[in-house]
Amino acid sequence: MVEATTLPRNEDGIACVLGVLKQQFGERFQTGAAIREQHGHTTTWIENQPPDAVVFAQSTQDVSDIVKVCAAHKVPIIPFGTGTSLEGNVNAPAGGISIDLSQMNAVVEVNAGDLDCRVQPGVTRMALNTHLRDQGLFFPIDPGADASIGGMAATRASGTNAVRYGTMKDNVLSVEAVMADGKIIRTASRARKSSAGYDLTRLMVGSEGTLAVITEVTLRLQGIPEAISAARCSYPSVEAACQTVMAVIQYGLPVARIELLDAMVVKAVNSYSKLTLPETPLLLLEFHGSDASVAEQAEVFGTLSEEFGGIGYAVTTTAEERNKLWQARHDAYWAMLTLRPGCKAVATDVCVPISSLAEAVVASSRKAAELDLVVPIVGHAGDGNFHATPLVDMENADELERAKMFVSWLNDLAISMDGTCTGEHGIGQGKRPYLLKELGGAVDIMQSIKTALDPDNIMNPGKIVGD
Amino acid sequence: MVEATTLPRNEDGIACVLGVLKQQFGERFQTGAAIREQHGHTTTWIENQPPDAVVFAQSTQDVSDIVKVCAAHKVPIIPFGTGTSLEGNVNAPAGGISIDLSQMNAVVEVNAGDLDCRVQPGVTRMALNTHLRDQGLFFPIDPGADASIGGMAATRASGTNAVRYGTMKDNVLSVEAVMADGKIIRTASRARKSSAGYDLTRLMVGSEGTLAVITEVTLRLQGIPEAISAARCSYPSVEAACQTVMAVIQYGLPVARIELLDAMVVKAVNSYSKLTLPETPLLLLEFHGSDASVAEQAEVFGTLSEEFGGIGYAVTTTAEERNKLWQARHDAYWAMLTLRPGCKAVATDVCVPISSLAEAVVASSRKAAELDLVVPIVGHAGDGNFHATPLVDMENADELERAKMFVSWLNDLAISMDGTCTGEHGIGQGKRPYLLKELGGAVDIMQSIKTALDPDNIMNPGKIVGD
Repeated sequence: MVEATTLPRNEDGIACVLGVLKQQFGERFQTGAAIREQHGHTTTWIENQPPDAVVFAQSTQDVSDIVKVCAAHKVPIIPFGTGTSLEGNVNAPAGGISIDLSQMNAVVEVNAGDLDCRVQPGVTRMALNTHLRDQGLFFPIDPGADASIGGMAATRASGTNAVRYGTMKDNVLSVEAVMADGKIIRTASRARKSSAGYDLTRLMVGSEGTLAVITEVTLRLQGIPEAISAARCSYPSVEAACQTVMAVIQYGLPVARIELLDAMVVKAVNSYSKLTLPETPLLLLEFHGSDASVAEQAEVFGTLSEEFGGIGYAVTTTAEERNKLWQARHDAYWAMLTLRPGCKAVATDVCVPISSLAEAVVASSRKAAELDLVVPIVGHAGDGNFHATPLVDMENADELERAKMFVSWLNDLAISMDGTCTGEHGIGQGKRPYLLKELGGAVDIMQSIKTALDPDNIMNPGKIVGD
Repeated sequence: MVEATTLPRNEDGIACVLGVLKQQFGERFQTGAAIREQHGHTTTWIENQPPDAVVFAQSTQDVSDIVKVCAAHKVPIIPFGTGTSLEGNVNAPAGGISIDLSQMNAVVEVNAGDLDCRVQPGVTRMALNTHLRDQGLFFPIDPGADASIGGMAATRASGTNAVRYGTMKDNVLSVEAVMADGKIIRTASRARKSSAGYDLTRLMVGSEGTLAVITEVTLRLQGIPEAISAARCSYPSVEAACQTVMAVIQYGLPVARIELLDAMVVKAVNSYSKLTLPETPLLLLEFHGSDASVAEQAEVFGTLSEEFGGIGYAVTTTAEERNKLWQARHDAYWAMLTLRPGCKAVATDVCVPISSLAEAVVASSRKAAELDLVVPIVGHAGDGNFHATPLVDMENADELERAKMFVSWLNDLAISMDGTCTGEHGIGQGKRPYLLKELGGAVDIMQSIKTALDPDNIMNPGKIVGD
């Protein structure tokens, strides 16, 4: 494991808070070791720092009550959705109370006429889409994991559809949030656009629970397209695949998804998902629109792709075939793990200007080889965002050291290309040094905001900024 | 005129700063009455509060130097672009220094491959689009006026293209800004998406110079579409027109523009622009895409529109005819003024969920009639944003009073519909009471941020929040 920084614990405060919350929440207050560990960081290589207790909130008022108790005793709170974050975002480095929001899972209202809905933070994206399907609507953000909407908002998540539909920043209209003193605010109206003061919605989106607990989210929705088709195309090299992506973006082709899998991932996916894809770099695509527009998009893509040596371009229109392809993409994480059984998959998440994507991906594979690491690469290529994922034998200290070097090198590379160390996973604990490298003095401004809104540093301390 | 609140002046500080800046900036430091007035609020009915001096900045370092001098003496600074804001945003209620950014008008770089560019804040949107045209690119945000990009960012502007391309919040990738102590920060990298800490970019966009002076903007660009066509359609009633818009949005038709003009505006436009449009409510549209897609969009619109009684639907594909139609739309403000020569056009800017648009527009016309006011209405209907524009004889105290009642009633109506008092003009001085009504406790959070980043309240004081 990679050690996470521990922060000083306020033992007296914590003892007090545990007593009060136990009294107040009965069965919904839990301190068992297993449940506490499950609410610490459990993904990738950052060590687990469990909270002192978990409280299952059922309402905004519950959250406000918990925060008020914690505020009175200066005890940390850590909001928890599904625990799928990847940078230690839910760890409790100073102990404190994890507020589990999974029972706040109601879809409060769907305004089909306005293409929006209000949901509690514990609704997962799959549950939401199941709820919406009958009304011909869907919520497009798809980070892969069946994350909670609250968590996705807190992390500014995105995923495979972002190239067309944007990220959580673009699809959250408003949030209700509990501030560090327990006060409940709403950041915006339900209007599709507004110039009403500071954009608190966007400030909350991506703040990882360090400024407030998000207790309700108003989302923009989309109509389910009349037609959806998927396509795949293989390439002689990663450069050729990336150059195709660049041409697609420059052309303005409104692809809904354009995902890169390098040869190593294709191999893993073939084996894991029983497919027979050519084991060379692959682009997976999805087109949304009317029948005519989808057909036109597919044709234009074919033409663009040919210029860069695309091979075996195949468009699928049946839902079954399409789902099989995309299931393979979504299973890529599990498939990659089979490349080195028993190893840990270490998430990285750089995002670069698209003109630098080919260079960045190629350099990553070269660096991995230099360091004798196994590093499959998938990418939300249309955004310039890719995940190079070292598979690391955590028992091998030397390999672990080399993996750390790789991650550090990769983040530095992205920053040197005027890109970012995180396209969608957030800063959490793991990316803090890179945030500073990336944005320098702007981090002081973040710190000022943090201090202003959370003077006692009780809101998810040790994440993004603050001690 | 409507009186604007005056704030206490720091006379000693101002005297000091005038001396220092005069020394430092020579000819670029101006204190003539005409130039000072031109840098106060000159649009709509809010009174002019000129600054004590205007300094023409030519670089980020200039801006930083000016802010440092003002910070040392606790003297207000007010950033100025083109002065086209509508809510007293550039007034100087406590005096101070207007920083005119119009000479910082360089397009610093265009990254055609990444569909982005870096510009200084004084570049106007028309100048930018002229610069970009040869590369087949354009910047889609069009607020009507030839505003500066810095001002558009500061106001979170949008306009006719927002229904398809979003607002400034969606199209600014990053800003460079000078903070209240003169420090220069950059809010984000050039990556198309990022989860790197608090979204300072979106915090600066829409902050109206109250947190920082924007000294550079990185923008997302679009490829000029292969095909553009415009269309118009008349309706028996405003409801019918609004219902058509709602159907278009629900259908997911990717219209680039869909603008509502009520009968009164059509009449004015006919007279002003020498057109012969039927003098009933009108929708003006623009479709962007491939030849095939534009044709398909136009056809789908026709079908949707028929259901609501659309009459005289006409699609134009020649650039000349299209420009004539859109010129008429852009001239609507001047055309409206001819309805009551000598009167003042009072800007309003509510935005409601689209399902409430018909009700809101109809109620506005009814209320105007009740109050015996002349109130033409245009709307960025696809966003639920409309401008009901009382034409007011400012010499008539009773009429002025009725106009104030109308504006107040309208903002309250929008807020009661879960909409906003400002879709794109910002809060400035004029909308401050409504911001509080709209967002309640969230305004305290805005105030905390303001105080944290600008403890001496020197950054455009009296706007949005603060005293």
